Amino acid sequence: MADFIKTPGTLALVPVLYAVWNDLILTPEEARVLELAVDQQNWLSTDEKICLRHYLRTSAEINPQILNDWLQTVRSLKFKNRENLITTGIRLARTLNSNFDIPAESKAVLGKIDTQLGIPDGETPFIFFPEQRNTLTAQTGTRIKFDVSEMKSILSGDDTQIISRIHEIISKPEFSYIDTGDLNEYREQILKWAKILAEHGIGSLAYPEEFGGSNDLKAYFAAMEALSCHDLSLVVKFGVQFGLWGMSVFLLGTEKHHKKYLQKIGTLELPGCFAMTETGHGSNVKGIETTATYNHSTKTFSIHTPVESAQKEYIGNAALHGRMATVFAKIIIDGKDYGVGAFIVPLRNENGELMPGVFIKDCGRKLGLNGVDNGVIRFNQVTIPADEMLDRFASVNSEGKFESPIASDNRRFFTMLGALVGGRIGIPRSGIAASRSGLTIAIRYGDGRKQFGPEGGTEVPILNYRSHQRRLIPKLANTYALHFALQYLTDRYVNRKEDEMQEIEALAAGLKSIATRHTTETLQECREACGGKGYLWENRIGTLKNDTDIYTTFEGDNTVLLQLVAKSRLSDFKQEFSSMGALGILNVIAGQAITAITEMNPVAIRRTDEEHLLDPEFHKEAFEYRQRDMLFSVAKRLKRLISGGMDSFDAFNVCQHHLIETSEAYIHGIILQQFRAAIEKTNDSACREMLEQLYRVYVMNHLEENKGWFLEQGYMDGVKTKAIRKMLNQLCWEVRQDAVPLVDSFGIPESCLFAPIARRN
Amino acid sequence: MADFIKTPGTLALVPVLYAVWNDLILTPEEARVLELAVDQQNWLSTDEKICLRHYLRTSAEINPQILNDWLQTVRSLKFKNRENLITTGIRLARTLNSNFDIPAESKAVLGKIDTQLGIPDGETPFIFFPEQRNTLTAQTGTRIKFDVSEMKSILSGDDTQIISRIHEIISKPEFSYIDTGDLNEYREQILKWAKILAEHGIGSLAYPEEFGGSNDLKAYFAAMEALSCHDLSLVVKFGVQFGLWGMSVFLLGTEKHHKKYLQKIGTLELPGCFAMTETGHGSNVKGIETTATYNHSTKTFSIHTPVESAQKEYIGNAALHGRMATVFAKIIIDGKDYGVGAFIVPLRNENGELMPGVFIKDCGRKLGLNGVDNGVIRFNQVTIPADEMLDRFASVNSEGKFESPIASDNRRFFTMLGALVGGRIGIPRSGIAASRSGLTIAIRYGDGRKQFGPEGGTEVPILNYRSHQRRLIPKLANTYALHFALQYLTDRYVNRKEDEMQEIEALAAGLKSIATRHTTETLQECREACGGKGYLWENRIGTLKNDTDIYTTFEGDNTVLLQLVAKSRLSDFKQEFSSMGALGILNVIAGQAITAITEMNPVAIRRTDEEHLLDPEFHKEAFEYRQRDMLFSVAKRLKRLISGGMDSFDAFNVCQHHLIETSEAYIHGIILQQFRAAIEKTNDSACREMLEQLYRVYVMNHLEENKGWFLEQGYMDGVKTKAIRKMLNQLCWEVRQDAVPLVDSFGIPESCLFAPIARRN
Repeated sequence: MADFIKTPGTLALVPVLYAVWNDLILTPEEARVLELAVDQQNWLSTDEKICLRHYLRTSAEINPQILNDWLQTVRSLKFKNRENLITTGIRLARTLNSNFDIPAESKAVLGKIDTQLGIPDGETPFIFFPEQRNTLTAQTGTRIKFDVSEMKSILSGDDTQIISRIHEIISKPEFSYIDTGDLNEYREQILKWAKILAEHGIGSLAYPEEFGGSNDLKAYFAAMEALSCHDLSLVVKFGVQFGLWGMSVFLLGTEKHHKKYLQKIGTLELPGCFAMTETGHGSNVKGIETTATYNHSTKTFSIHTPVESAQKEYIGNAALHGRMATVFAKIIIDGKDYGVGAFIVPLRNENGELMPGVFIKDCGRKLGLNGVDNGVIRFNQVTIPADEMLDRFASVNSEGKFESPIASDNRRFFTMLGALVGGRIGIPRSGIAASRSGLTIAIRYGDGRKQFGPEGGTEVPILNYRSHQRRLIPKLANTYALHFALQYLTDRYVNRKEDEMQEIEALAAGLKSIATRHTTETLQECREACGGKGYLWENRIGTLKNDTDIYTTFEGDNTVLLQLVAKSRLSDFKQEFSSMGALGILNVIAGQAITAITEMNPVAIRRTDEEHLLDPEFHKEAFEYRQRDMLFSVAKRLKRLISGGMDSFDAFNVCQHHLIETSEAYIHGIILQQFRAAIEKTNDSACREMLEQLYRVYVMNHLEENKGWFLEQGYMDGVKTKAIRKMLNQLCWEVRQDAVPLVDSFGIPESCLFAPIARRN
Repeated sequence: MADFIKTPGTLALVPVLYAVWNDLILTPEEARVLELAVDQQNWLSTDEKICLRHYLRTSAEINPQILNDWLQTVRSLKFKNRENLITTGIRLARTLNSNFDIPAESKAVLGKIDTQLGIPDGETPFIFFPEQRNTLTAQTGTRIKFDVSEMKSILSGDDTQIISRIHEIISKPEFSYIDTGDLNEYREQILKWAKILAEHGIGSLAYPEEFGGSNDLKAYFAAMEALSCHDLSLVVKFGVQFGLWGMSVFLLGTEKHHKKYLQKIGTLELPGCFAMTETGHGSNVKGIETTATYNHSTKTFSIHTPVESAQKEYIGNAALHGRMATVFAKIIIDGKDYGVGAFIVPLRNENGELMPGVFIKDCGRKLGLNGVDNGVIRFNQVTIPADEMLDRFASVNSEGKFESPIASDNRRFFTMLGALVGGRIGIPRSGIAASRSGLTIAIRYGDGRKQFGPEGGTEVPILNYRSHQRRLIPKLANTYALHFALQYLTDRYVNRKEDEMQEIEALAAGLKSIATRHTTETLQECREACGGKGYLWENRIGTLKNDTDIYTTFEGDNTVLLQLVAKSRLSDFKQEFSSMGALGILNVIAGQAITAITEMNPVAIRRTDEEHLLDPEFHKEAFEYRQRDMLFSVAKRLKRLISGGMDSFDAFNVCQHHLIETSEAYIHGIILQQFRAAIEKTNDSACREMLEQLYRVYVMNHLEENKGWFLEQGYMDGVKTKAIRKMLNQLCWEVRQDAVPLVDSFGIPESCLFAPIARRN
């Protein structure tokens, strides 16, 4: 290979040669253009042209040494801002000949090379001096613009005291996490932890004081949520024992049951189960097949599993620890089926041995929650006294006749289920808590972890990347949004009146669905956002993800629940119009005009100014429009299909997707409302402004996610949805700087976070 | 409570009373309307009116016995189709008085009650005779309209033989799954299985025959995919040993390395690792900090971990079994850094003891793939002969000078990485195989599992529900679509020419991202679609989900890869125009008009007819329009930002989301193309028609998912996107009937599926 000759002329083109060879692969066409440019420079000698042409051939073999020499040659100069290749080259040539210069027109022609090589305007010097580069992306970081402890107390609200108590307990050394490989060891550990909680009176918080409780249902829910920053198997074991088992006795039973059992349940002296789900009937519990047959002579019930599909399945606490169970079974008296009732059935004696006629199979390893001992239960004519029937809603009188304050089996069944709606509050609150742990880990990691950066410059925290922000910041905002909505749901439930139950049930079903799906999605994003680190057990996200994965299924499959919400919405709708004397659900609705045209004015659908996009009035209208239009249109569609001769069951099936979206729109209306209400009552102005920003992220993200619908309806024009996306990106960029304080405000004990990647520096 | 008097008049209203009390809760207003209607009936006696009015009060206590009596009374009649409540009542009254009738105008007034109660048209009789109801939803089921073995052979293509060989091996009893709780036991099992594969010559498929291989890279990929219907820890262990470790020696080394190592690697006599990723540098591998310092006197390299962030992390095979590793490190000669090179470094001796200077920490339990022993490796001045440098792209000559055919460190580095692109083919193919297992389990379960149904009627397979179909059928179609695209990628790679590498690398990066994300999403849907059953270990979905979860991260984080694809697209773009003499990337593009207006004609954007929606020409145009427009617009945006003075690194960050979507649009263009190509070459007409249907699902689903964008651009009107959604729903409904044969066509051995819920009846 020919040596590179160092003359002022060739030196003037060294910056060009380096730029060409450092990263870009010359195409023959590009080389030809460059060669031509060089050829036309009359100030170059023939030798210089030959030399340069050699190094411009695409087939040239450029030794790494030469390339490095070129670089060092340029770096012997001082850095000059915004200079182009040829100007740098002239400065270089002047190190050999201080009078060197080239004609002005050559400068103009060669000055275009930077652009032709695709080097962004003004960035040429950074090819040689990458360390001089300073970017906005690299400069951004965490700021403190609100008081974390103030935000923490806004989130805790009335529950501050119970949260502190729980955090104190679970931060103790005996609550250190254990490896989850060995099922037996893990399950026994969970039982031990649950007993410690019971000793502290946490289990009986919701029970009346006369049975050792605190009569504080609100505190019970707060405790379940606060526990959820620790091991979720413990939370579920806790929920099964004190919530499902205890509350079924409390709410479906009467005084005799309370006296006999509640105290022992609250102390975990009597571990028990909630045996509703069967192999054949999970979502459709109404169809369960276990029987409870009344025997007049002995005044007993015989609990029986007549077919395999009637086995009680996935029953928590059943495989190992449960001594009794609330069993749901069809009440059979004199051969007649009176629908579903609930019974207290003993499973094991005090030594833990199975009772005669009770058969239990361990469900074995699961995707998560492996500290909970789920089992399959089969009964072979297990006899229990009639008194063990939980008789608040259904009973057998002294003459052996069935009695109930509610005539319809259906209505009685749903009233019973309604009494158990608490599970649909506890689970989403636990899920949100898990999202908080995941986000704390992923956001702290993203704030500290650096990767990539401007070519040759310093690396940048990954949370500074826009796509990383779009993954995590809207999830953070949704987590705040759902927190306030779930607080509202809890308050409504705790202070419920009889005639509000239908609304509260729908609210719980809907929020449970939206919140648990949010949890699944958030933890998935968190795992991916932490890359390989997120895959390690030590960093917790995997465990949180697996443990909460079933939240979308239990306490009611989300898809099924959202359909219930839609049906409830359709009948609410009916009631709004009942004063007009109309009775039918669908008929009434179908007569209505679909939308208030006022909202669709051509100016509003194209408005893109910040004032409008961030105006809570606009948000309220858009959310309300969506929920109302969805409801009207699905009702109309159902009516049309059924009038056209389709069976209503088929018609509901055809509209299933539409019904589910209707429910989602309704629930988001509630979330929006409650987020605003929470902001309005925040006094601390820095926190208020911060919540306002999160609220905006929540709204923009929701509109962006549903832009297809808004565009399809003509409610927004493309220019508006584009402006919304831009606003969302900008908000994420801003909130990124507050993200660490925002997760710190969740106040999760460091020992519970555990993850090495979440450690504060 | 007053007894109900049985006279012809009251009997005539028994069907009304039952309907009111069975499920509906009377509002006071509804009760008033009904009372009024009863009061106005002059054919009722005063006593009858008093009795009826009693049972219409909302506060009435209706005994379950009475309600049941009413039902049985009506059921004593014969079922009559489409009758309303009052007509049924008259028939009932006639059982007491055969001449009973009521005035025509009363019939008309009372005949409206059904509608007022919200009972769908014609469905009144089913309130009393639910077993008579027959719905379309209940009637649908599985049909056989194509030959499963024919479809199976279309999918297998040229790989039929290797797939059969693999299936035969992994169906043997010694390949029965084991519980994954105990890490040690699981890892040893995986090693045993890998050895069996090696004994069968599966490990060395891709190596030259002279080293014991079959020189068949295509078969190697097919084997990896076929193995993926079994345990994925085995697949990854297999991939680490024979793919990453073996292929790095093969492709980065030269003859001396091949002779010394390849045979032993292929037989698993020499287990090894691929040590590239470091604690501080995962995605940004170029920044790794491990050093390989040349010592002139001894002609050796010293491999060293200078800082904690330079530790090799997540290295498969390292914690227990690896004896050597391909280690990536910065080449340092005479104090100068020559960029990244690769070296063969011994980790353990033949007894499995660590070599001096090598320190390894077990990564411990992970979210999945726990049969693979990942470890963290630290080197303390480990000396290796210079010959152990893998010297295809970089070497040290006899004078101790660095040599390379590629001058730029950057370019050399990316050329090395390019040689290893195979991993980005193996992983998505493995992911797609896992999706197939998940879908087989979920679809067979959905076909058999019944839940809910028309009130009182038989239950319905859950796959008959539209929302269930929308969850699974598009995923099934995408799985087919991606299969053909990955086949194409494999063929391109196996038959690659040097100048196609940039395109193939982009294709692999993009398809890897799209396919692995598809896998994660599909397995999540499958888990949820199987409810509690999907959560049990025995049903496999949880394991598949956890094992593949890291696929979106390893062999390159998807977000990072999609940005690479976009950058590659931007430079392809440049080349398209290079004949026009332009050199710059962005500048060229920015001058172009964004779209071909011809495609945006106002008729096409509103067309909703089936012929148009299902026309492959329309699909091609829409996909192409999207990918071209995305590319033009992101290029323009970048140009505008940079011209406006923004640093290009910041500008790329601002457009990150846009860049990622640009890549996705490009990859979907390829998928569409390859799906069509596969259909065109299918001879069997039934299979061809089936593939055509799946193709339509794929396209409609893609358009529906991206409708926001198409609407925003004005490329489609709302009427059209609505029609697309409707078409998608209809296609899902139809393909549901073929879903079981379609998953059976995947031909997964039953023993590998394992899941009890997937068992064929």
